[in-house]
Amino acid sequence: MLLVQKFGGTSMGSLERIANVADKIIKAREAGHQVAVVVSAMSGETDRLIALAQAIQAEPDPREYSMLVSTGEQVSMSLLAMMLHSKGVPARSYTGNQAGIHTNSVYKKARILNLDCKRIQKDLAEGRVPIIAGFQGVDSCGEVTTLGRGGSDTSAVAVAAAIQADECQIFTDVEGVYTTDPRVVSTARLLEKVTFEEMLELASLGAKVLQIRSVEFAGKHNIPVRVLSSFVEGNGTLITFEENVGLEQPKVSGIAFNRSEAKITVRGIPDSPGVAARILGPISRAQIEVDMIIQNVPVAGIIDFTFTVHRDDFAKTVEIVEEIARELGASEILKDKKIAKLSLVGVGMRSHAGIASTMFTALGTEGINIQLISTSEIKISVVVDEKYLELGVRTLHSVFHLDQQEVREEWDPHPL
Amino acid sequence: MLLVQKFGGTSMGSLERIANVADKIIKAREAGHQVAVVVSAMSGETDRLIALAQAIQAEPDPREYSMLVSTGEQVSMSLLAMMLHSKGVPARSYTGNQAGIHTNSVYKKARILNLDCKRIQKDLAEGRVPIIAGFQGVDSCGEVTTLGRGGSDTSAVAVAAAIQADECQIFTDVEGVYTTDPRVVSTARLLEKVTFEEMLELASLGAKVLQIRSVEFAGKHNIPVRVLSSFVEGNGTLITFEENVGLEQPKVSGIAFNRSEAKITVRGIPDSPGVAARILGPISRAQIEVDMIIQNVPVAGIIDFTFTVHRDDFAKTVEIVEEIARELGASEILKDKKIAKLSLVGVGMRSHAGIASTMFTALGTEGINIQLISTSEIKISVVVDEKYLELGVRTLHSVFHLDQQEVREEWDPHPL
Repeated sequence: MLLVQKFGGTSMGSLERIANVADKIIKAREAGHQVAVVVSAMSGETDRLIALAQAIQAEPDPREYSMLVSTGEQVSMSLLAMMLHSKGVPARSYTGNQAGIHTNSVYKKARILNLDCKRIQKDLAEGRVPIIAGFQGVDSCGEVTTLGRGGSDTSAVAVAAAIQADECQIFTDVEGVYTTDPRVVSTARLLEKVTFEEMLELASLGAKVLQIRSVEFAGKHNIPVRVLSSFVEGNGTLITFEENVGLEQPKVSGIAFNRSEAKITVRGIPDSPGVAARILGPISRAQIEVDMIIQNVPVAGIIDFTFTVHRDDFAKTVEIVEEIARELGASEILKDKKIAKLSLVGVGMRSHAGIASTMFTALGTEGINIQLISTSEIKISVVVDEKYLELGVRTLHSVFHLDQQEVREEWDPHPL
Repeated sequence: MLLVQKFGGTSMGSLERIANVADKIIKAREAGHQVAVVVSAMSGETDRLIALAQAIQAEPDPREYSMLVSTGEQVSMSLLAMMLHSKGVPARSYTGNQAGIHTNSVYKKARILNLDCKRIQKDLAEGRVPIIAGFQGVDSCGEVTTLGRGGSDTSAVAVAAAIQADECQIFTDVEGVYTTDPRVVSTARLLEKVTFEEMLELASLGAKVLQIRSVEFAGKHNIPVRVLSSFVEGNGTLITFEENVGLEQPKVSGIAFNRSEAKITVRGIPDSPGVAARILGPISRAQIEVDMIIQNVPVAGIIDFTFTVHRDDFAKTVEIVEEIARELGASEILKDKKIAKLSLVGVGMRSHAGIASTMFTALGTEGINIQLISTSEIKISVVVDEKYLELGVRTLHSVFHLDQQEVREEWDPHPL
């Protein structure tokens, strides 16, 4: 197979770790794979450079900032090339410019426009390991640009797309994507495979495995992405972009949760067209993001309107809502910061209507009152009292048998 | 004037020092000059990077080595650009590649082939300070090359030549070129001006002010070079390439000396053609450099042959000479490591035959016996007993009035 392997800052954090990275690359080559590599700066290095810049200016010029921090990857990539040489493997390192990673000119948040990967392909054809600086590119004027923090994942996926790699392997400090947080549920299981959509939902829980933009990019180019650990042996989790899911697809892939939201209910509003917009408009204009929105059918011309925001925005939101509530003639405002959101995630859910009732029954049996419900194609979320978070997650993890090995017919592991 | 200012690693060694560099640039601009800047890496940084490489391989691949160490200048130049911005001065930093410094492909000792300085000139025309990474360039394949240690001086001169600068100012940790070492002669005086040839002779004493290749380069392109201190205010020393020296030219510019040589005399060799070659041939083949060579007219068909080598090569040289001396039928070999070489340096010497006798008389008056004499167009060197070094230098410094201000009609200081 043709693989792109991406190693993050922690994986490249010292000469010992770079030696470990070299060994992983060599192992993949010995297994018969062709390997192109994308690296981040050694951990701490980017922060060191940023600290230097900010000791001069709080807001350094983006062009010079990119010039400065892009040296981090240039150091780590050349050290990795030397490390491979020292182990007898031919390798060459490339800056974003040399690798032909063309971006727009938004220096600190540049977007990749296209890749001219002739040199990478020549190296691969001639048995060398091309090592490409992640996180950086070059604009049409020849200026160094950076993709923004975490952009190395995007670089890796872009290289994989350009050279039509069979798989883009993101080595990181987690072993992959789990059915839920192992710190909450000890039987949480590493998923062998998740779909892109599932990954987005599961990653948003806090287990930020991959930079989301890079995964979107991978989906657009249909590049299978595998997340795996630099430090623990294993196959990690493969992220796929399959539309057609077989019958054996499990209904639920994992359980996401967070306790970062707060709930606000405006009660007793006389129903009239545009009420929701009257409430949400000023909140949105204040740059506050609203997550769940619940409005039931009116009772006797009166409605209750509930929504959740991030806890950091709670005080500001309450302030805005109190004014609107007066104008709307609402009877009261209920405020609650002690909530938790639990979400069942799974593409299999689309065709399995019974899942919601299983979920609600299981929570009810444990005495957990459901305050809000919201659903999407591949997700059912409920809001419960924060104190039930761990119990709720464990209950759902068990009732949907997430601790048991999944069975997927099309599963085809690529052992490394 | 259009100036190129070059700041070395010590001058760029910390954020405080970079701030000081920015102030010097601003001062020159406020005096009405246009300034382009060439920088080295922050002191210690290049060594840090080399240590990382050598922890992996004793002889790292030159391409990757250049890739690695070239980041040093990229960091310092972007920090200087930010520092200038913070002081309200527009500036842009450029890698060797971006500045269009094209070199051959001898990675660690690359030679500059040509400069495409469009961007530098555009910056100057638009009132910005272009800041160029010293010590690095790009070859015809787009690979990063480095010029070798000290190459930043050469970069500065090359930029000065390309943009036809009026002066290339090398800021360093010495104040300029002195009449002799101030540690030996307290009245040693900073020279306002020396010729290129004088500078080569005076620099070779140990006061290695500039990288010699850069000065040769400046001479070839007729770029006046000024050496001055980053830390002490002053006009430094201007190095010129004048062929025609006015009448007011002082006879002697300075006094060079060293105690790093050793003397070997082969006595009582029967004179025959090719004797000198028989002695020097094997020494040269052993990669030993011979400095002074003295052979007088034969007396009764017998000659004495004397030469000096670096003390580090003394033992090896003696070994070689002893064998040849036997073959030549020489009577004895005299060996002396306790010698010192004193040299009067000055372009004015060419037309002043009396200088040698003044020199010899002054030394004789002080009881200093002259062991060897050697002369060149702009230099008279003598070898004396090492114990007379300080006395000899002080005597000559005084007798040629080097502690008194020189008078040069064409002197036109450019105060900064």
